[in-house]
Amino acid sequence: MSEKAPSPPYELYYWPTIQGRGELVRLALEDVGAPYVDVARIQGANAIASVLAGEAGGGRHFAVPVLKAGDVVLGQTACILDFLATRHEQLLPDQEPATRHRALELQLTVADLVAEAHDTHHPIAVGAYFEEQKEESKKRAAAFLKERMPKFLGFFESVLRDNEASKKEHLVGAGFSYVDLSAFQVLSGLAYAFPNAFAAYRKEIPLLIALRDRVASRPRVAAYLGSTRRVPFSEDGIFRHYPELDAE
Amino acid sequence: MSEKAPSPPYELYYWPTIQGRGELVRLALEDVGAPYVDVARIQGANAIASVLAGEAGGGRHFAVPVLKAGDVVLGQTACILDFLATRHEQLLPDQEPATRHRALELQLTVADLVAEAHDTHHPIAVGAYFEEQKEESKKRAAAFLKERMPKFLGFFESVLRDNEASKKEHLVGAGFSYVDLSAFQVLSGLAYAFPNAFAAYRKEIPLLIALRDRVASRPRVAAYLGSTRRVPFSEDGIFRHYPELDAE
Repeated sequence: MSEKAPSPPYELYYWPTIQGRGELVRLALEDVGAPYVDVARIQGANAIASVLAGEAGGGRHFAVPVLKAGDVVLGQTACILDFLATRHEQLLPDQEPATRHRALELQLTVADLVAEAHDTHHPIAVGAYFEEQKEESKKRAAAFLKERMPKFLGFFESVLRDNEASKKEHLVGAGFSYVDLSAFQVLSGLAYAFPNAFAAYRKEIPLLIALRDRVASRPRVAAYLGSTRRVPFSEDGIFRHYPELDAE
Repeated sequence: MSEKAPSPPYELYYWPTIQGRGELVRLALEDVGAPYVDVARIQGANAIASVLAGEAGGGRHFAVPVLKAGDVVLGQTACILDFLATRHEQLLPDQEPATRHRALELQLTVADLVAEAHDTHHPIAVGAYFEEQKEESKKRAAAFLKERMPKFLGFFESVLRDNEASKKEHLVGAGFSYVDLSAFQVLSGLAYAFPNAFAAYRKEIPLLIALRDRVASRPRVAAYLGSTRRVPFSEDGIFRHYPELDAE
C-alpha cells in the first residue's frame, strides 16, 4: 500500500479551462510536489474522450477527473485522492484503515456539497445552459444558501471543533490531510460564487475560515495559487458567480 | 486489512421505513449473511440523531447510512461498502489495491446516478415536498430520462461488455462484487420509478438486465427480497413512482 510514486509523471485528465472537480486533484498533486502533466492543457480536450473510453487503461470511466499513474488509471475524485494518499503520506500521515475510511467519508461529504453547489446553477438539466434554467436556479440557490450550505459547513465546523487531537486545526486525525485541501477549495469556491451570502455566514465558521487560510499559506499551495497553473474561477466551472443567485 | 468480522453483530443506522441509500448496505450484509441489527427499526429514528452526533463513536456523520462495526463507525454508503469488502471477501474477492479502487470508482458512479434519480423529485429543495416542486420535477425528470439515465446505464452496459474476464457478467474483475449488488438495486429502483421509460430503454442494456436477474436469484438475496426485512419501494424513498414524471 505504500509503493513509491512511479518515475513517470502522473497524467491528470481534466477540462483545461476550469477548476471544477479536477482542482481537488490538482491541489493534492501540487501540495506534495508530485510531477504531473495536465494532459488536456497540452493535447486539447480530445484527450479526455480517449481516456473516458478506456484507451489509457483501467477500463472505461464515466467522467473526468481521471488520473493515470503508470498502470493504474482511476476516475472519481474521492477515489483518486484515496489512491494518492496511499502513495504520498503527507496527504494522510496515518494510514490505518480506520483513518483512511474516515478521510474517505469526509471527502465524500465534501463531494456531496460540491454537487449541490453545482446544481444551484443547473437544477434542471446538466446539458442545458444556465440561462435556460435561471428561474429554477434562483429557487434552488435560495434553498441551498438557507438550508444546505449552513448544514454542510456547520457539520464541518463541528468536526473541527470536536477534533481536539488536532487542536481543532484539521478535519481528520491529528494533522493535515487531503480533506483539508478539499475544504480549502470548497470554501474558496463558495466565497467566490456567493460573496454576500458567504460574508454573512462566515462568522458562524471561524475554525473553517482559519483552516482555509492555513491551507492557503502552505508553501506549495501558495506558490500554486500564484502561478498560471491555477485556472481562475469563472462562470464555466462548478462555483459560478451569478449575482442573481447570491443573497442581497 | 483482512480482520475477521467482529463477534457482536453490525449495527446499521438508517431510516427504518425506506430503502434509500441504506438498502445498498443492507443488500451487502444480507448477501454475506452477516449478523446485523437495523437499529432504527428497533429503537426508532431517535437512534439516528444520536449516531449522527457521534455518540456511537467515529466522530460526527453528515447523514445515514452509518455502520457500526465494533470500534469502527462509518458513514457514506460507498465508504461503508469498501470497508465491508475488506472483511467479507465475497463482496470483492480480489483485494488488490487497484481492484479495490476500481470497485470504489464504479460504486461512486452508482452513487452519482442515485443522487440524480433522487433529484428528479427534489430538483429545488430537499427540505420541501414534491408537491411544492412538481413543475420543476417534470422538467428535471424529462432531462434525466432523455439524457442522464441512458448515459449512466449505457456506461455500465459498456463496462460489462468490455469485461471479458467475467464473461460480461460482472462489473469489477472476474467475478461477483458489491458493485453488482448496487447495480441490481439501482436497476430495480429505476424500473419501479419510471416503468414506461425503463421498459422502453431496457432493450439497450441486455447485459445489465441479465446481471440484475442473476443478482436477484442469489440465494441470500432472493431470501431477503422475499422477507419482511425488505422494505417495499414507496413514494418516501429515493426511487419514487410519480406517473407525471415517467414517460407516457
